[in-house]
Amino acid sequence: MVARKSFQLELEQLQQDILKMGALVEKAIADAVRSLADKDLVLAQEVVDGDDFIDELELSIENCCLRLLALQQPMASDLRVIGTALKIVTDLERMADYAVDIAKITIRLQGQPLIKPLIDVPRMASIAQDMTRQSLDAFVERDVNMALSMIEMDHEVDHLYSQVFRELLTYMMADPRTINQATYLLFVARYLERIADHATNLGEWIIYMVTGEKKELNR
Amino acid sequence: MVARKSFQLELEQLQQDILKMGALVEKAIADAVRSLADKDLVLAQEVVDGDDFIDELELSIENCCLRLLALQQPMASDLRVIGTALKIVTDLERMADYAVDIAKITIRLQGQPLIKPLIDVPRMASIAQDMTRQSLDAFVERDVNMALSMIEMDHEVDHLYSQVFRELLTYMMADPRTINQATYLLFVARYLERIADHATNLGEWIIYMVTGEKKELNR
Repeated sequence: MVARKSFQLELEQLQQDILKMGALVEKAIADAVRSLADKDLVLAQEVVDGDDFIDELELSIENCCLRLLALQQPMASDLRVIGTALKIVTDLERMADYAVDIAKITIRLQGQPLIKPLIDVPRMASIAQDMTRQSLDAFVERDVNMALSMIEMDHEVDHLYSQVFRELLTYMMADPRTINQATYLLFVARYLERIADHATNLGEWIIYMVTGEKKELNR
Repeated sequence: MVARKSFQLELEQLQQDILKMGALVEKAIADAVRSLADKDLVLAQEVVDGDDFIDELELSIENCCLRLLALQQPMASDLRVIGTALKIVTDLERMADYAVDIAKITIRLQGQPLIKPLIDVPRMASIAQDMTRQSLDAFVERDVNMALSMIEMDHEVDHLYSQVFRELLTYMMADPRTINQATYLLFVARYLERIADHATNLGEWIIYMVTGEKKELNR
C-alpha cells in the first residue's frame, strides 16, 4: 500500500516535470521567433544556451520513467502513462532543438535587415505554442477532444507554411540578392511546421494514453 | 529460472527486430536518394508506401519494451538495453521519415531534369547509410569504439552539407530559374544531414547502453 502510494506520488512528480519541460519548450519557440523578428542576438543566444537544461530535464524524466517501470509492476493504465511520458519528452526535446535551430539562424543573420516584415512566421509560431500548451493541458486533463484539436491547428500551420514557401520563392526570383536570407527564412518556416507535427504527435500519444488506441492524426 | 530464460529470449528477439528495422531504414535512405538521382517516381512511391510498415515495427518494438519492463524486473544492464531500444527506434523512425521527405521531393519534381548532376548528395546518403549500419553493428557487438566512429562520419556529412548549401545558393543566384528546384535540393541535403545526426544519437545511446554513461557526440 505504501509502495503504491509512493508510486502515485512519483507519477505525479513525473507529470509535473513534463509540464515544466513543456513550458520551457513553449518559451524557447516564442523566444526564438521573437529573436528573429527583433534581430535580438542576445535573446537568440539565450535560447541556444537554455537547451542544455531542457536536454537534462529530458534525461532525468526518461530515467524516472525507466525506474518506475522497472521497480514497480504498473497496471495497464499506469503503464500507458509512463510509456506516453517517455515518448512525449522525445517530441518536446525535438521541438526545443528546432527552436535552437531558429535561434541559430537569428545569430547567423547577424542583425541584417529582414527582406520583409515577418507576418506569417510569427503566426505559425503562435499556433505552435498554443498546440504545445494545449497538448500538455490535454495530457493533464486526460482530454481526448483537446488532443484531437491538434489536427485543425496542424492544418493551419501547414497552410501557412505553403504560403510562406511560395512567397519566399517569389522574393528570391524577383531579386537574387534576397536568396541567402530567404533560404534561411524558408528553413525557419519548415522548422515551425515540424514543431507543429511534433505537437500533433503529442496529441496522438495522449489519445493513446487515455484510450489505449494509437491512431495517426497528421495524415 | 524459466522466466529469466524467456526474458533473455524476448530480449534477443527485440534486438533482431531492431536490426530488421535498421535494415529497412538503411534501404529507405538509399532508395529515396536513388529515386531522386534517377527520377524514378515508382521507387519514390515505394519509399513513401513502405513507411507504414516501419511505423508499425516501431510501435511493436515499443510495446515489447514496455512489456519487458513491466512484467520483469530487469537488472541494471538489461534495463539499459531496453531503455536504449526504446530510444533507438525513435531515431530510426525519424530517419525513415526523412527518407520519405526526400522521396516526396522526387515525386514533386515530377521527373524534371536536375539542374546539376547529384554528386555530394549521394555521397552524403552513402555515409548516412554506413552510419546506420555501423551503429546497429555496434549495438549488437556492444562496441563503443564503433559507436564513437559516428563522430568522424557525422563531421564529414556536415562538411558536405555546407558545401552543397553554398553550391546551391550559387546556382540560384546565377540563374533564378533554378531557384525552385535548388530549394528542394537544399532540403534534401538538410534531411541527410539530419539523418546523420540521428545516427550519431544512435551511437550515443549505444555508448550509454555499454558504459552507463550518456555523453553527447555531435557538439
